[in-house]
Amino acid sequence: MASGAAERVTAAVLIIGDEILSGRTQDTNLRDIARYLGTFGVDLAEARVVPDIHAEIVAALNALRTRYDYVVTTGGIGPTHDDITAEAVAAAFEVELAEHPEILAMMQARWGGELTPARRRMARVPVGGSLVKNPIQGPPGFTIGNVFVLAGVPMVMRGMLEDVGPRMRPGAVTISRTVRVEGSGEGVIAAPLEAVAKAHPAMSLGSYPFYGQDGYGSNLVLRGRDAAEVEATVVELIGVLNAAGIANVRAVEAA
Amino acid sequence: MASGAAERVTAAVLIIGDEILSGRTQDTNLRDIARYLGTFGVDLAEARVVPDIHAEIVAALNALRTRYDYVVTTGGIGPTHDDITAEAVAAAFEVELAEHPEILAMMQARWGGELTPARRRMARVPVGGSLVKNPIQGPPGFTIGNVFVLAGVPMVMRGMLEDVGPRMRPGAVTISRTVRVEGSGEGVIAAPLEAVAKAHPAMSLGSYPFYGQDGYGSNLVLRGRDAAEVEATVVELIGVLNAAGIANVRAVEAA
Repeated sequence: MASGAAERVTAAVLIIGDEILSGRTQDTNLRDIARYLGTFGVDLAEARVVPDIHAEIVAALNALRTRYDYVVTTGGIGPTHDDITAEAVAAAFEVELAEHPEILAMMQARWGGELTPARRRMARVPVGGSLVKNPIQGPPGFTIGNVFVLAGVPMVMRGMLEDVGPRMRPGAVTISRTVRVEGSGEGVIAAPLEAVAKAHPAMSLGSYPFYGQDGYGSNLVLRGRDAAEVEATVVELIGVLNAAGIANVRAVEAA
Repeated sequence: MASGAAERVTAAVLIIGDEILSGRTQDTNLRDIARYLGTFGVDLAEARVVPDIHAEIVAALNALRTRYDYVVTTGGIGPTHDDITAEAVAAAFEVELAEHPEILAMMQARWGGELTPARRRMARVPVGGSLVKNPIQGPPGFTIGNVFVLAGVPMVMRGMLEDVGPRMRPGAVTISRTVRVEGSGEGVIAAPLEAVAKAHPAMSLGSYPFYGQDGYGSNLVLRGRDAAEVEATVVELIGVLNAAGIANVRAVEAA
């Protein structure tokens, strides 16, 4: 990363879909987007899941797009009656929705006479928007203003994402290391961890406990933008934990 | 379910944790909570993920608790310096945080002289709150007003959840059935699906596409509170899809 003051670039994810809120589908897009954006130095600062209701999507999108540098939405861009994301994005930006000639041409080439009205709905893009490539199958996503509108199907979403990162302003990449403690709970980890955290105010040190066969343990995650400081702090933290009598401690590869 | 007008009872989930937003951890609590609440007829209406930042937690909690019947939070109730959920909940309700005698007694029995200041932090509950049992290990969660504050570790969260449902006002349970279409995309499914959806305004019909070896297919999910109508609509939808030339269609067991 560049030296000097690191600029923070932020994003929010807006997951659109009753199937996530009903518990029917396990979302994995949030994690994939978070990790992908991280490699461009774009920090995911918030995420929301909203149902397939026009007013809810518009309100959440407006709240997020005015607050963060970017918003990535997933879901609701298919051809069925419950796919209302394009309308909602157009409403949020107060623009019309119009058939995009490039998508229409793509669809006509593929479907010819089978270009159903339902499929044709997927050619609609808010006026002023541009396309996000879909390298898998089906119509593209789109982007307007600081909002990227992607499919909800994970494989398609991941494919579209490849066309998103390069179009964002890159931030300073956060470097993350994990120190894993087994057989000791946070009750004894807390004091040494906090001492190290206080000594490194530019970094973020978090404790993510787990509960397994041997009782509680924790993954201590050290995050920062200065690689040398992050590496030195890993060594320092292990030393401080050992000195506090916590023996089963090791640096592990980043997930 | 009882006949007559079905009362809708709503909940929101607030996931607190940098580890979800960094993409380090795959959240599964949202889905578990959604499914669990569904069995009590409580509909999950929104979810948010916020970082370990006091003001963000307070703002999101206040937005959600004033809008929905219940809020369930996960994460941030451990003993380390980044566990700030209890403070934030107290701030949202504008009450003090005080050591709860019952938790303190539990901790003293367990830890005796090893009751570190960090562990003791976990005895703090907003004044006016009551405890949520932890049947796994460690201190309990708590509830105040319409907010339930649970652990983030999935096994512990699921355990605590058992003490949450019975304390909520039950709603009319939504019945869900799935019709799976393989080898046909939403482009041809959309019109017959919409026709059936329009004929059943009291129900919600959604299409959740997937992309696999045979190209696109979709799970069509029929949801409603009248069991007889839901079952009849499954049969009707399969008939309408078959009549539209879509052959590979079958009702599948609810997930």
